[in-house]
Amino acid sequence: MFEAYLSGVRKQKPHIHCITNYVSANDCANILLACGASPIMADCPEESEEITALCDGLLLSTGILNPQKLSAMLKSGKTANRLQHPVVLDPVGAGASEFRTASIRQLLNEVHVDVIRGNLSEIKALFCRSGSSHGVDAVVSDSITKENLRERLALIKQAAHEQDCVIVATGRIDIVANNNYHCFCIHNGCSMMRSVTGAGCQLSALTAAFITANPQSVFEAAAAASCAMGVCGEIAFENLLPAEGNATYGNRIIDAVYQLDENKFVKRAKIERK
Amino acid sequence: MFEAYLSGVRKQKPHIHCITNYVSANDCANILLACGASPIMADCPEESEEITALCDGLLLSTGILNPQKLSAMLKSGKTANRLQHPVVLDPVGAGASEFRTASIRQLLNEVHVDVIRGNLSEIKALFCRSGSSHGVDAVVSDSITKENLRERLALIKQAAHEQDCVIVATGRIDIVANNNYHCFCIHNGCSMMRSVTGAGCQLSALTAAFITANPQSVFEAAAAASCAMGVCGEIAFENLLPAEGNATYGNRIIDAVYQLDENKFVKRAKIERK
Amino acid sequence: MFEAYLSGVRKQKPHIHCITNYVSANDCANILLACGASPIMADCPEESEEITALCDGLLLSTGILNPQKLSAMLKSGKTANRLQHPVVLDPVGAGASEFRTASIRQLLNEVHVDVIRGNLSEIKALFCRSGSSHGVDAVVSDSITKENLRERLALIKQAAHEQDCVIVATGRIDIVANNNYHCFCIHNGCSMMRSVTGAGCQLSALTAAFITANPQSVFEAAAAASCAMGVCGEIAFENLLPAEGNATYGNRIIDAVYQLDENKFVKRAKIERK
Repeated sequence: MFEAYLSGVRKQKPHIHCITNYVSANDCANILLACGASPIMADCPEESEEITALCDGLLLSTGILNPQKLSAMLKSGKTANRLQHPVVLDPVGAGASEFRTASIRQLLNEVHVDVIRGNLSEIKALFCRSGSSHGVDAVVSDSITKENLRERLALIKQAAHEQDCVIVATGRIDIVANNNYHCFCIHNGCSMMRSVTGAGCQLSALTAAFITANPQSVFEAAAAASCAMGVCGEIAFENLLPAEGNATYGNRIIDAVYQLDENKFVKRAKIERK
Repeated sequence: MFEAYLSGVRKQKPHIHCITNYVSANDCANILLACGASPIMADCPEESEEITALCDGLLLSTGILNPQKLSAMLKSGKTANRLQHPVVLDPVGAGASEFRTASIRQLLNEVHVDVIRGNLSEIKALFCRSGSSHGVDAVVSDSITKENLRERLALIKQAAHEQDCVIVATGRIDIVANNNYHCFCIHNGCSMMRSVTGAGCQLSALTAAFITANPQSVFEAAAAASCAMGVCGEIAFENLLPAEGNATYGNRIIDAVYQLDENKFVKRAKIERK
Repeated sequence: MFEAYLSGVRKQKPHIHCITNYVSANDCANILLACGASPIMADCPEESEEITALCDGLLLSTGILNPQKLSAMLKSGKTANRLQHPVVLDPVGAGASEFRTASIRQLLNEVHVDVIRGNLSEIKALFCRSGSSHGVDAVVSDSITKENLRERLALIKQAAHEQDCVIVATGRIDIVANNNYHCFCIHNGCSMMRSVTGAGCQLSALTAAFITANPQSVFEAAAAASCAMGVCGEIAFENLLPAEGNATYGNRIIDAVYQLDENKFVKRAKIERK
């Protein structure tokens, strides 16, 4: 079933307006092309509304934020809402600075976001009192594992309900929860993905492509995107040669997305409903 | 004949001042190094004139434009004109927003540009009433194929004449026209190049290197750059392993430029005068 | 002995706040992950102090500088000084424009920098009357070779003494001098590293990780970082396949850092005390 959402992307080739950051912009563009979507990058307030209107979906990533980019995000987010374009928010660094956290809160207040994709530290910084973000990486105590899954599930489900959106919290296990206390757990992926800069941003871009091409099934399509990324992380790891490390591994993940088809996806997908 | 322009770059090692965008800046820098040129990236108005004066040629790419960068481009463009340094303009996203289109028109009005390198949608947005840009990619109806070549040629030749410069319109077939209704058609390249983000920007950087090293033959050198890029796209495609996709392919194109020599170039070049 | 500094990084996993540039940011992040550190990129004055305080060390790279970024660097630099976090300055383009040179001088006046890592042209632009920078690359006359080593050593030692910091001047031979006229010469590396954009920036990032994890031995740790980068340049070159060029080579350098261990490091390190 989930593989159909990938095919939806390849068929519809959605244009995704990305307001993102210079660390991962190139990789985000390439992973969008790899899955069959088209990236359009533009981040200045002078044109962001028009670019959003030209596209089919919107990705807002708060990495390397500044006031101009925030202003562009607010304008584009409202335009996307007005035109009923799906919106994905990647709250990079929520909790790391007052400016970052306040900006993300403002985005959440003024823009309806369909999916939030972050690590657990970022989600907690936004929805719990006990946020403990350490920049862009989840702190160790904020891992998602078999042992703490039950507690994490409750937290993410509650946050998704409160925010009235889908939340994707990525970790060893990915949790995808909707506003109605439903949830998918995804057991794909590979620990080496944490050594690739911007892997989370890339997943957020992929998620934007998946939900834009499958707007009737945002919850399932977001889960499919996480699962696809995890599957491609596994395939890329298997393709890694002995002397290769994280830089080549990053490229091999995007390569695997480019090569992914329904068959490979079905065989490897490990999604369970919780 | 065209291969000599590559050797010119390798011999003269021109310094190219690039005012470009954060999606493709790294790849543009690496492709300049690959062909033997030296990139210098600087995009703030406080220093752009001095950096231009320090270099031998100038690349202006309007991807991810903002008012500060536009101001730097205007200053650098005028400095380059004054010093008779060749200027390449890549009008990324012409037609996608009023700000983008108006900025590009301002650049064309205030700076003499030696070569414009874009896709057909961008060229049409600037020179025809019927522009139909969809962000940074050529819309399907704006392809350049055998079937519509005759009509496209007329359009590009007319635009090049009006603007008094060389125009490189890239597509399945690349068209390179000068101000005097002369034209080259280039039949190299590979459809997979469309899956590599910033491949057009990279060609624009390569073009800047080629015309800067061969200032007496801007028209021919621009055609040689397009041809070299297409040849390298073919070589890279042949070097691609079964599990590899667009990310690795992008690197292999730059690798092929690094390895390109006159012999390989001559054997594969498919340029015809029209 | 030097290999222990690498192990220090892998053990302590320092968080490095990077205020750097969009050409090399992705590679800098990946090389930090490769050596075991964690990058946090943030460059706006609204949050830079908080991000610095959250991290363990600071990298300031003046590539693609602008006034906002300079302001963020000054704030972060002072915060790092106050918290006794190590600071590395990469004076990209010193001498290339008045704005760039004046900004770097201001940084050196207002922030205590533990290590300056640049090429000889940049170092000379800052510390000699006879600066001759040509953008971001060392001009040919500013190479460091066996023939001119003696003279270069004297110059770098004097500059390090004057500035009361460690200076790493990279070239065919790397020179690492401290404020006390002591010096290491490093004979590792590979000429092809000059064809990889941002290789110097990456070394600066690596240096920040090494000195942050080994704050009692900044001088030795900086030398170890340069040596590790050179060793990885050699390993990457040996791993290069016939059709591969500078783009893949760049990835293979980061891959080699990812794979580097004490054994490989000891076997290849060529450091001598001068």
